[in-house]
Amino acid sequence: MLKYELVAQYIQQFIKENGFQAGDKLPNVESFKNKYEVSKSTVIKALEELEKNGIIFQTQGSGIYVRGNKRKGYMNLLISHGFKDEIENATVSYKVNKLEELIPSSNVREQLKLREDESVYFLERIIYVNKEILCKEISYFNKDIVLFLNKPIAEGSIFHYLENNLKVKIGFSDIYFQVDKLNEHEANILKLQEDDPCLRYEQIFYTTTGIPFDYSQLVYHYGNAQFYIPAHK
Amino acid sequence: MLKYELVAQYIQQFIKENGFQAGDKLPNVESFKNKYEVSKSTVIKALEELEKNGIIFQTQGSGIYVRGNKRKGYMNLLISHGFKDEIENATVSYKVNKLEELIPSSNVREQLKLREDESVYFLERIIYVNKEILCKEISYFNKDIVLFLNKPIAEGSIFHYLENNLKVKIGFSDIYFQVDKLNEHEANILKLQEDDPCLRYEQIFYTTTGIPFDYSQLVYHYGNAQFYIPAHK
Repeated sequence: MLKYELVAQYIQQFIKENGFQAGDKLPNVESFKNKYEVSKSTVIKALEELEKNGIIFQTQGSGIYVRGNKRKGYMNLLISHGFKDEIENATVSYKVNKLEELIPSSNVREQLKLREDESVYFLERIIYVNKEILCKEISYFNKDIVLFLNKPIAEGSIFHYLENNLKVKIGFSDIYFQVDKLNEHEANILKLQEDDPCLRYEQIFYTTTGIPFDYSQLVYHYGNAQFYIPAHK
Repeated sequence: MLKYELVAQYIQQFIKENGFQAGDKLPNVESFKNKYEVSKSTVIKALEELEKNGIIFQTQGSGIYVRGNKRKGYMNLLISHGFKDEIENATVSYKVNKLEELIPSSNVREQLKLREDESVYFLERIIYVNKEILCKEISYFNKDIVLFLNKPIAEGSIFHYLENNLKVKIGFSDIYFQVDKLNEHEANILKLQEDDPCLRYEQIFYTTTGIPFDYSQLVYHYGNAQFYIPAHK
């Protein structure tokens, strides 16, 4: 864990222990800097982290305030990498339909910035939350980063494996989505009807140095998925 | 415009003028601090702003990198406040169906933290992008902040009016959404069929001091709306 992540945890604990409510003003950056004996920029980074999590909001020249609690059962898309972290108190499980190495289409090659002859890991899974179908997921992994993948690994959190076993430094991601109708194949998998609504969701994950390593296409079950974004001006 | 917003503009210009491409490393914080003669925390805030816009990404201990261009025609939800800013080179127009003062339901009262006897501005609009229907929008405005609203104002960007005329300091917002089927009434308005897919989208906007002033419920046309989020670890 990085120093600013630790300070973010401390501040979150501080908010909880002191019973701060939505709208309450917190001590300033200088005060946190002294309290935790870290640099000003570490405090600033920690506060940005808490902003992304929807825990505080900051206003130029005015201060740092506690934000209200978000509704329960919604996934925070800003901290999305792996589902376990997104839905509190939920049991997430994975069913692997297919895992193989293949030469991808030109679209996938472009998203992952691969050479023409490079193969990828191709994975198709169903993701369940509390035993309800959350989504169908197809992922393409850059093998320069995701050195090895097998079924037991893919039946758990791949991002946990990447970070802890392969020491991949996950940086950022681009999310694109739109609403559409299910085709017959997708409807069968999600146990819905053809032409039922769905969210088509694409996410490209990059390492901290900007290398795309995971291009995923998800189709969310319209009845079982709800999303949250803490946005800022 | 705040100082950090100006510095964010300078840096964006600097990236453009020097022909930096996706993955290229930028000068460090110290160097921008000296270049623009501002404080370190102003540079850090400017860089966070550029991160939210998907223009750069930062990695602890490694540096600041240029991010790739996002796909065209997608709305960036992290910088959403009013549609004009979100879709580049698009013509946005508004049709006001209804504007009145009323005592809201208990749900709306709760979202806006109002007293029982407080009335709100209620607004129903259709929003068009390049003359195609983007969404149906219902908004409830807290009259303590949105002191006055009429049809001519509601036929343009209300947020532009709030910031420039009423000097409202717009802070942050909570976004909640899920996919659903259209009911008959909504289908008529969006010129689609009953049970066609839609995105149901709620957004609560707060001032910089945490006062909720706009609770909006949007129903997006599934064929005409595409979304983008630059997410970070």
